[in-house]
Amino acid sequence: MGNLKGNIAVLGAGSWGTALSMVLADNGYSVRLWGYKQEQIDEINEKHTNEKYLPNIKLQKEIVGYTSLSDALAGIDEIVLAVPTKAIRDVLKQLIEILKTPITIIHVSKGIEPDTLMRISEIIEDEMPASLLKDVVVLSGPSHAEEVCLRHPTTVAVSSENLEAAKRAQDLFMNSHFRVYTNTDIIGVEIGGSLKNIIALAAGISDGLGYGDNAKAALITRGLAEITRLGIKMGANPLTFLGLAGIGDLIVTCTSVHSRNWRAGNLLGKGKNLDEVLESMGMVVEGVRTTKAAYQLAEKYDVKMPIVDALYHVLFSQLDPKAAVDNLMGRMKKHEMEDLEVMIDTQVQK
Amino acid sequence: MGNLKGNIAVLGAGSWGTALSMVLADNGYSVRLWGYKQEQIDEINEKHTNEKYLPNIKLQKEIVGYTSLSDALAGIDEIVLAVPTKAIRDVLKQLIEILKTPITIIHVSKGIEPDTLMRISEIIEDEMPASLLKDVVVLSGPSHAEEVCLRHPTTVAVSSENLEAAKRAQDLFMNSHFRVYTNTDIIGVEIGGSLKNIIALAAGISDGLGYGDNAKAALITRGLAEITRLGIKMGANPLTFLGLAGIGDLIVTCTSVHSRNWRAGNLLGKGKNLDEVLESMGMVVEGVRTTKAAYQLAEKYDVKMPIVDALYHVLFSQLDPKAAVDNLMGRMKKHEMEDLEVMIDTQVQK
Repeated sequence: MGNLKGNIAVLGAGSWGTALSMVLADNGYSVRLWGYKQEQIDEINEKHTNEKYLPNIKLQKEIVGYTSLSDALAGIDEIVLAVPTKAIRDVLKQLIEILKTPITIIHVSKGIEPDTLMRISEIIEDEMPASLLKDVVVLSGPSHAEEVCLRHPTTVAVSSENLEAAKRAQDLFMNSHFRVYTNTDIIGVEIGGSLKNIIALAAGISDGLGYGDNAKAALITRGLAEITRLGIKMGANPLTFLGLAGIGDLIVTCTSVHSRNWRAGNLLGKGKNLDEVLESMGMVVEGVRTTKAAYQLAEKYDVKMPIVDALYHVLFSQLDPKAAVDNLMGRMKKHEMEDLEVMIDTQVQK
Repeated sequence: MGNLKGNIAVLGAGSWGTALSMVLADNGYSVRLWGYKQEQIDEINEKHTNEKYLPNIKLQKEIVGYTSLSDALAGIDEIVLAVPTKAIRDVLKQLIEILKTPITIIHVSKGIEPDTLMRISEIIEDEMPASLLKDVVVLSGPSHAEEVCLRHPTTVAVSSENLEAAKRAQDLFMNSHFRVYTNTDIIGVEIGGSLKNIIALAAGISDGLGYGDNAKAALITRGLAEITRLGIKMGANPLTFLGLAGIGDLIVTCTSVHSRNWRAGNLLGKGKNLDEVLESMGMVVEGVRTTKAAYQLAEKYDVKMPIVDALYHVLFSQLDPKAAVDNLMGRMKKHEMEDLEVMIDTQVQK
């Protein structure tokens, strides 16, 4: 474990924020893990557990819980932002009040803000005065939190417009079981991480209808193609979607019963309506918000996204899920490369 | 079901040949399903079942079993070749003796011949005199046979150097639950279909070691990258690997417990040696042969294939599976796009 290398603040004591705190503690950092629930923070400090989010996991003593944001931030110049997407603007507003010197924010959230259609890094730049923000980095990839806590091999990508900032984040997190790769395409990494939740909803619906692995593989394959088409129009590098934050994360999310979005889709496929599903989940289903945002993005960038379109109508205008999936299977193009070739043409013309 | 449209011979009465016979029968064709086991063929003709390969599935009466190859081929000009890869040369030799007029062969097998390093279509062209061979088509994609028999939605690609031949195969098989897309990159479709079995073995090993979904997603993602690199050197279109015969088939094979290659890998990961595994499977594990061929291909084309390399040493020189996977995770490049960029550079230079 080595000597402590310094302090890092992790904001958000959910499963992912806590798992990443454990990686940092393994790497010799002293971690200030901030959350707003006193009882949870007391549990972290007294029992070194976070049972609600990570059952049966023992946290290291180098992880110290805080409920005071100003205490957590004292003397800190790097933070990991792991709060739910909906809470980000609110937390950033609190940050601004406290900070005296500029910081680097490594965010690990996934989503697109409906209506503004901003990615998380854009929301951060929108809220934070330039004088208080050094760099924004995103960390994303195929990574169930529970497996990271168990030190199972995991790989993620870190991306920033500033490669040096991405390399610094790589140094913070990299170890023998948590492999971190740099990537300079922050647009692609954020789009891949967010839109995979939509395909997971669709995959869950297909499974809920009892359609099996062949149909799900088709949805994932075609889903990756439409995410890539949108990403290119937004300025992403198509190669990102072939990597960990693209197909890697998509596979984990669509094939694991642990995925919240897959489970919500599964219930929809079994005939429940959206309100019933959201109520029975009792948690945020990020893919529902993201579907609305992606539908708007497809319009804005004039990109055909048949899976997003179908899911939007299932969620928000009572389209029958079976009709939607059958229609999707039926209307795929006859030559499978037609739309993929558009991708590469775009890439080559750059 | 419509009127019968004509006769087609399907050679090979295993699960995939039988499932495809059912698709053809649904589409109005009279199917001659050839196999060499009298008992099995009698079962198909008398009970309209093929219980050993497709339990609880009822075959249509339009599927008629044959043990005589010359009877099955009488008046036929299109055949579906669905025999195990190892048996292909032998069956082709028998074909040549019988045929009087040229035929089109639609093959649905997966594998690369060790030592000759030939793809299936090359083996066919190698064995068949040009005067007896019209076109060679390959059909491949994410498709468990059982699901096809249940009319669950399934998508596949058909590919031939002659687009018209691919379109004809599309017409034969396409219906509302079995969607067929044409593709002119036969090299890519054959390489994708064959090499996925190697990655499935590796994914099975990772699961057998208890490494979880994060590690498996990393292996699939990196596996796709190395298959793509090799494919490009062999003349394939990189886009094929993003499609149904690439990532689509790879996902189904790596995430399903029904996959024979995954199961073999799983046993290796749990500590069994190759002989024990092959004995306990009692069936051909195509990925083992393909690993040897891919290892030779990587040398021939001078392509780095770390997963193939690791698996080769696990299978054939007693490398410890845990050491192999840990080593793979450790030695991935620090910038995830390095090798992917090589891919696109190659593509752009074409």
